[in-house]
Amino acid sequence: MIVSLITDFGTRDGYVGELKGVLLERAPDALPVDVTHDVPPGDVLTGSWVLARIWARFPSGTVHLVVVDPGVGSDRCPVAVSIGGRWFVGPDNGLLTRVLEGAVPLPEPVSGDRSARVLEASRIGLRPLSDTFHGRDLFAPAAAHLAAGGAPGELGPPLDVGELVRHPLDRPRRTADGARGIIGYVDRFGNLITDIPSAWLPAHYRVRVGNSDVRHPGTSFADVASGEAVLIRGSAGTLEVCVRDGRADVVLGVGRGDQVQVVEADADA
Amino acid sequence: MIVSLITDFGTRDGYVGELKGVLLERAPDALPVDVTHDVPPGDVLTGSWVLARIWARFPSGTVHLVVVDPGVGSDRCPVAVSIGGRWFVGPDNGLLTRVLEGAVPLPEPVSGDRSARVLEASRIGLRPLSDTFHGRDLFAPAAAHLAAGGAPGELGPPLDVGELVRHPLDRPRRTADGARGIIGYVDRFGNLITDIPSAWLPAHYRVRVGNSDVRHPGTSFADVASGEAVLIRGSAGTLEVCVRDGRADVVLGVGRGDQVQVVEADADA
Amino acid sequence: MIVSLITDFGTRDGYVGELKGVLLERAPDALPVDVTHDVPPGDVLTGSWVLARIWARFPSGTVHLVVVDPGVGSDRCPVAVSIGGRWFVGPDNGLLTRVLEGAVPLPEPVSGDRSARVLEASRIGLRPLSDTFHGRDLFAPAAAHLAAGGAPGELGPPLDVGELVRHPLDRPRRTADGARGIIGYVDRFGNLITDIPSAWLPAHYRVRVGNSDVRHPGTSFADVASGEAVLIRGSAGTLEVCVRDGRADVVLGVGRGDQVQVVEADADA
Repeated sequence: MIVSLITDFGTRDGYVGELKGVLLERAPDALPVDVTHDVPPGDVLTGSWVLARIWARFPSGTVHLVVVDPGVGSDRCPVAVSIGGRWFVGPDNGLLTRVLEGAVPLPEPVSGDRSARVLEASRIGLRPLSDTFHGRDLFAPAAAHLAAGGAPGELGPPLDVGELVRHPLDRPRRTADGARGIIGYVDRFGNLITDIPSAWLPAHYRVRVGNSDVRHPGTSFADVASGEAVLIRGSAGTLEVCVRDGRADVVLGVGRGDQVQVVEADADA
Repeated sequence: MIVSLITDFGTRDGYVGELKGVLLERAPDALPVDVTHDVPPGDVLTGSWVLARIWARFPSGTVHLVVVDPGVGSDRCPVAVSIGGRWFVGPDNGLLTRVLEGAVPLPEPVSGDRSARVLEASRIGLRPLSDTFHGRDLFAPAAAHLAAGGAPGELGPPLDVGELVRHPLDRPRRTADGARGIIGYVDRFGNLITDIPSAWLPAHYRVRVGNSDVRHPGTSFADVASGEAVLIRGSAGTLEVCVRDGRADVVLGVGRGDQVQVVEADADA
Repeated sequence: MIVSLITDFGTRDGYVGELKGVLLERAPDALPVDVTHDVPPGDVLTGSWVLARIWARFPSGTVHLVVVDPGVGSDRCPVAVSIGGRWFVGPDNGLLTRVLEGAVPLPEPVSGDRSARVLEASRIGLRPLSDTFHGRDLFAPAAAHLAAGGAPGELGPPLDVGELVRHPLDRPRRTADGARGIIGYVDRFGNLITDIPSAWLPAHYRVRVGNSDVRHPGTSFADVASGEAVLIRGSAGTLEVCVRDGRADVVLGVGRGDQVQVVEADADA
């Protein structure tokens, strides 16, 4: 069974190796699949976005082990959650917000039963349980249990899915002359991935972001000159603002959470 | 079946995860094997070199999924190519140049049948097909199809291998007193990997590169003092110029594509 | 069979791919598992620490392929070593020191038979054997041999485990008023991981490291204010010194190998 891995452990130390070792010791037939270990340390919002991008691409039955856990050692709750045929194992700190809410960047709305379990360290965890590395001591054993076909009920008591922690989520909205939303994610190229669905984009439009007006819709970087911004119907299903041969976040002076406004071009020519 | 991955996606965002998810959803028994996701963005020459280094090391039947695709969304052709028992899936933009030409760094000349298919998005791709992420929407499904034992003919129409895009390729040549070639690749340590076969190196020789004369052939870094350059019969089967405890590209002020001249030492003492 | 990978190859070039290709060509059913390829080049002490952290977490039968090999091409000996049911394949340059000595960061003492073999390139290696890349040409084939169930005796002649290279190892010791040890490892967050077992820590204590006195034991970063140092019973089973929202190595001006002194608080109030 596939166990996908999203963490903020980095790849330099042995942390990822310890987690994989525990996983494979308890589920020798599991296939660990690295998604990323380069989530910025403790950055739950980034982890939440990456998870939302990838989770439904994997086959049904996949266990997504997601450990971005700045509250390790506090009273945040360790959980396993089943949604749309996939399992999520990690801390209940909002990482699942976008998946639970069906927010972008989801490929499509997800239906099906949802259920959750609290992970009880005394039932499923390594002993002794460390104060600071529940990825290894609790989440990896729980993921192994599920990947090896173990009964979810053995992980711990049931939890109401409605009680899982969710971050406040800005929602894009249509306006009289277009749409408003935010920059949901800035990728490593500096591309600005907004939460405004591409399906909402008018035939002709421009975008206000930061102090700039971006006026060039395109289908690829090749549609503008080097250094210029282009508006793309992005691969997350939403509007992206990119700069050819440059970083849009730097060129436009904006970042995650900043507002984005789509204006129909004819209405504001 | 093994699916090796060479991309320029980086490891920070969810792009690699989306690609692996699509791959495993369609070929649950495939083994994705990370080669690198750190090809500099859009750097087809680097991708081409890395592919040439690794492809024949993998067992027959391996599918090499190679996505360095600066022309995504343009009219560059998506292809699957069979050479020497391995499959290549990616954009037809020159990535295969060194493999097709039998150029270094190849472990040995490759024989056997060659064939190619155009990938038809309507037959094999995800719907909707994005403008900017064919790695996920077209190449991963095609690789999955092959990894799962699907018929190549279902990918799309045949293509003449002779029509695949090839970059102009400098070729090393023997000279009256040695050999000439270029720096084909600079690795992360700053080592200069040339395209001059080690088999061409005289018993005694020196090397002109940039404004420098390098006069110390050796078998390892230990053969010179710290900060000095050494000439190595490298692991790609070609001459390498390295600096002990330093970066040869910086110390010698040269880079990829620069000329390298081997001069037999007795002929120029 | 699982083959874990610890190297200093980095992830940018094709080196990791070549090694994986050779491994899978000879052991098609092996599962290569990346632990890290980001050991600083030639840094055997770091490789040794990472290996000690992870090795016993993996299931019995795992082959740990550990290639941090600054002496490649010298007369250092290539070996395969069996300890506690796992195999280690790599250069005999001290990488195994902590595992052999049962030193931290080990989860627990390891018992069981120990044996070693010299790797004979003529029996097991690729031909030709390169001067500089035994990871690909010798260690990967040896790991593949073991992962595929091959007889250890076919690798080369036996070697006395007592003759394996070991680094001089500082040992923590109890003192009249606490304990003394060193910083064994600095992780990517700047956390100082000492070699002083958490079991030795008094109920109340402070720590002298560099020119600083750290006085705040805690169970997580949340126990101190931003920028302050905290003493943690770390996940390696030893004392860690961390700085909330900062790098302890920078804030305290210390690094690997520096001395650490634990002083019982009541004895020095």
